[in-house]
Amino acid sequence: MITNTAPKYEYMPSEGIEKIHETTMRVLEEFGIAFSHDEAVDALERAGCEVDRDALPAPLVKFPRELVMEQIAQAPREFTLHARNPQNNVIIGGNHMVLAPVYGPPNVQDLDKGRREATMEDYRNFVKLAQVVPDLHNAGGTVVEPNDEPQETRHLDMMHALLTLSDKPFMGNVVSAENANDCIELAAIVFGGRDVLAKQPVMLSLINVNSPRLYDTRMLDALMTYVRARQPVLVTPFILAGAMSPVAVGGTLVQQNAEALAGITLTQLVNPGTPVVYGSFLSNSDMQSGSPAFGTPESAAALLVSAQLARKYNLPFRGGGGLTSSKVPDGQAMWEAMMTLFPTFLAGTNFVLHAAGWLESGLVSSYEKFVMDVELLKMMQVFLGGIALDDEGLALDAFEEIGPGGYFFGAAHTMRHFRDAFYRPLVADVQNYIRWEQKGAETADVRANRVWKKWLNEYARPAMDSAIQEALIEFMARRKQEIV
Amino acid sequence: MITNTAPKYEYMPSEGIEKIHETTMRVLEEFGIAFSHDEAVDALERAGCEVDRDALPAPLVKFPRELVMEQIAQAPREFTLHARNPQNNVIIGGNHMVLAPVYGPPNVQDLDKGRREATMEDYRNFVKLAQVVPDLHNAGGTVVEPNDEPQETRHLDMMHALLTLSDKPFMGNVVSAENANDCIELAAIVFGGRDVLAKQPVMLSLINVNSPRLYDTRMLDALMTYVRARQPVLVTPFILAGAMSPVAVGGTLVQQNAEALAGITLTQLVNPGTPVVYGSFLSNSDMQSGSPAFGTPESAAALLVSAQLARKYNLPFRGGGGLTSSKVPDGQAMWEAMMTLFPTFLAGTNFVLHAAGWLESGLVSSYEKFVMDVELLKMMQVFLGGIALDDEGLALDAFEEIGPGGYFFGAAHTMRHFRDAFYRPLVADVQNYIRWEQKGAETADVRANRVWKKWLNEYARPAMDSAIQEALIEFMARRKQEIV
Repeated sequence: MITNTAPKYEYMPSEGIEKIHETTMRVLEEFGIAFSHDEAVDALERAGCEVDRDALPAPLVKFPRELVMEQIAQAPREFTLHARNPQNNVIIGGNHMVLAPVYGPPNVQDLDKGRREATMEDYRNFVKLAQVVPDLHNAGGTVVEPNDEPQETRHLDMMHALLTLSDKPFMGNVVSAENANDCIELAAIVFGGRDVLAKQPVMLSLINVNSPRLYDTRMLDALMTYVRARQPVLVTPFILAGAMSPVAVGGTLVQQNAEALAGITLTQLVNPGTPVVYGSFLSNSDMQSGSPAFGTPESAAALLVSAQLARKYNLPFRGGGGLTSSKVPDGQAMWEAMMTLFPTFLAGTNFVLHAAGWLESGLVSSYEKFVMDVELLKMMQVFLGGIALDDEGLALDAFEEIGPGGYFFGAAHTMRHFRDAFYRPLVADVQNYIRWEQKGAETADVRANRVWKKWLNEYARPAMDSAIQEALIEFMARRKQEIV
Repeated sequence: MITNTAPKYEYMPSEGIEKIHETTMRVLEEFGIAFSHDEAVDALERAGCEVDRDALPAPLVKFPRELVMEQIAQAPREFTLHARNPQNNVIIGGNHMVLAPVYGPPNVQDLDKGRREATMEDYRNFVKLAQVVPDLHNAGGTVVEPNDEPQETRHLDMMHALLTLSDKPFMGNVVSAENANDCIELAAIVFGGRDVLAKQPVMLSLINVNSPRLYDTRMLDALMTYVRARQPVLVTPFILAGAMSPVAVGGTLVQQNAEALAGITLTQLVNPGTPVVYGSFLSNSDMQSGSPAFGTPESAAALLVSAQLARKYNLPFRGGGGLTSSKVPDGQAMWEAMMTLFPTFLAGTNFVLHAAGWLESGLVSSYEKFVMDVELLKMMQVFLGGIALDDEGLALDAFEEIGPGGYFFGAAHTMRHFRDAFYRPLVADVQNYIRWEQKGAETADVRANRVWKKWLNEYARPAMDSAIQEALIEFMARRKQEIV
């Protein structure tokens, strides 16, 4: 993980943050949030919420603000997510940043085979890539949808791949309570039982709100299952402003805040003290076409304010990534990725989903964009790493040695530091035009194509006890039989 | 111009800024700066500097810190640059940002004709593009080098183009004192005489330091000429760290600061109170190849600190732009441009040279990249524009209208605001894959190609009094005869 000690960028003055908070409390008290889940509604009612069971499309829950503030205060400020390889343990929260690959796309794209439906092989490839790259600290979850596996059982194959091909922390399946339970059982085999998991959480799962103001049954089933097993969740309103929220960033932030705090309150009522992350997935619709638009200036601003809100509530924050609406890893893809990634880092985001590989509004996992995004992640780390002002950093001996009009290439100070003084690019090309042309006049995506292949070649499967391997296979086989 | 009221990003803690300041003062007092110009050296010596006239490659001047602080305090915090069309007047300094096109490339590139030597036609095209685009507030200077015009007289044709094809402020030629004087004379014809210019500055010229620690004769000739005519200059150390400065960002910032403050001190001794801008052009060498590298993480950090230093000295700040080492407007070009532009805006940079069109480490002015950069400039303005939290911004009536799980597209609040609620992209494509493919599967550069042609079509030459037009032609003809 990254420890980011750079100052956070406080985009919105504190009075603005207070105004959003106050309005959020009004929305929770006066408008409420709908929960399509009896047990969840029961728990909220018992805690003092006002419930309208006849409301449509689901029971409407109104939250007293004292309850919300009391409950969210129980969630830890930061927590450790344990990995199969303890060197890959990460802290979620505080000054730490954990980067995870793209999540959710049904398709993949690369320069060799073009755009196509993703398969289990692609799934394994992206897990391997996230394992190889030190700048990613999480193996991911649905890095792609493996469409060649039956829908009812593919969560088993995905979790098996995450557990065996990677030794980094990972994300659980959220399609149903049953799936979530299978993921917990598989993890329990690897980590030594459900009791161990409850003490040392190993998986972080993505609970999306069906915005506006609705938690659906499927997501609440998954939320309840993970939280009861004391596995942390990312409670994330999924908002494209203008469609799922008002066509205004202020109101959208209020809605997101109300939705997130309502869900986080529920997690603490179900299992007090369970780690939970304040999530934001907030962009806007293109109001001409109705299409989702990513890497927009509004989403960049909203990301910074979302992080400010999470800090106000002392909760770890998830947001940002390398988002874009572009169909190919071209100029647009990369300026939009930067438009999201730069504020992601300035916000000190604690968990960054979609940090690498996202393309086409999240419909495609791109092999080349994955590599290009990793370049951005590396650069952002150097950027926020600070500037040394000790004797070697100030280099006064170099000034003594090199006079006006001179060259520093040969200075003693340069000799001491040239190897690691500056960032070395991964795919960016700094050669002059003639050399670049002689080497094939390659664009960045063509160079990136070579890099992911090299990474897949370098991939080494982390060792795993054979008894555990067999137990995993056995569990999967049994469950597949039960399910089919 | 832009009024940027967003908070500045204070990258470096104030103790760091103080340490850089202190070390800078030591460099000025103990190591000194070389000035290859007798009059400049005389002025500095008279003011109390210690001068070694026998030093090589030029007289070495050591500055008492009190003198430096006294002199730079005379330069105005902000000033107005006057335009032929008073609606295009801009303030340089304070919370204002003025954006100017690329400066210096000998080549141009577009998708139709590829990379080639720039001509006077290209020069005129880029001046026209900067005139058409409202997001650029300055017509530029050497938008390209027009290689088809004789070197000795091309400054006349360039200045004539700036004065007649644009009615925005512009930049003067700095090749020699004679050239600078020609530019002032031409401007005087348009603005009503040298006296008017002295009261209402109209041109801003780029004085580069021949780093490390050397002001050469040519640049000092231009500086003295402009400053005596009370036209502001951008005093800008030109530094690729590792070559022209130590291979360390801290020492490089010290050197830049010493060089800039020395030159600014000179401007105030020559003509006290003349407006001057603290300039930074700071990137690093790729230490493997020795090539210049742009859009690097080190340059992003240095840019923010440079702006902090300029603020400390109450001086307007120039820096940043859309810099890249890429040879084509691909993914690399745009992530590197963003790596520089994002901090440019976070720093509240007052004058941004190279804001649009820069490609290939500054060797190429790209028509397509120009358009793509303008998209970034538009987005950054929206990003820093803030979030409205009034009643319409919070949209509580929309929450009242649209319940859980609903869609906001039809809400009354949406009807009131959908037209201008969110940024509308210039070249970014948000269509779905099928539509995008049906429309030709265009990458961003292909779409940008259409935009600059449309802009050139839309260009309208601003009106100018025919007597002034004739006087300009007459002056040019006379000077060309004298020079040849």
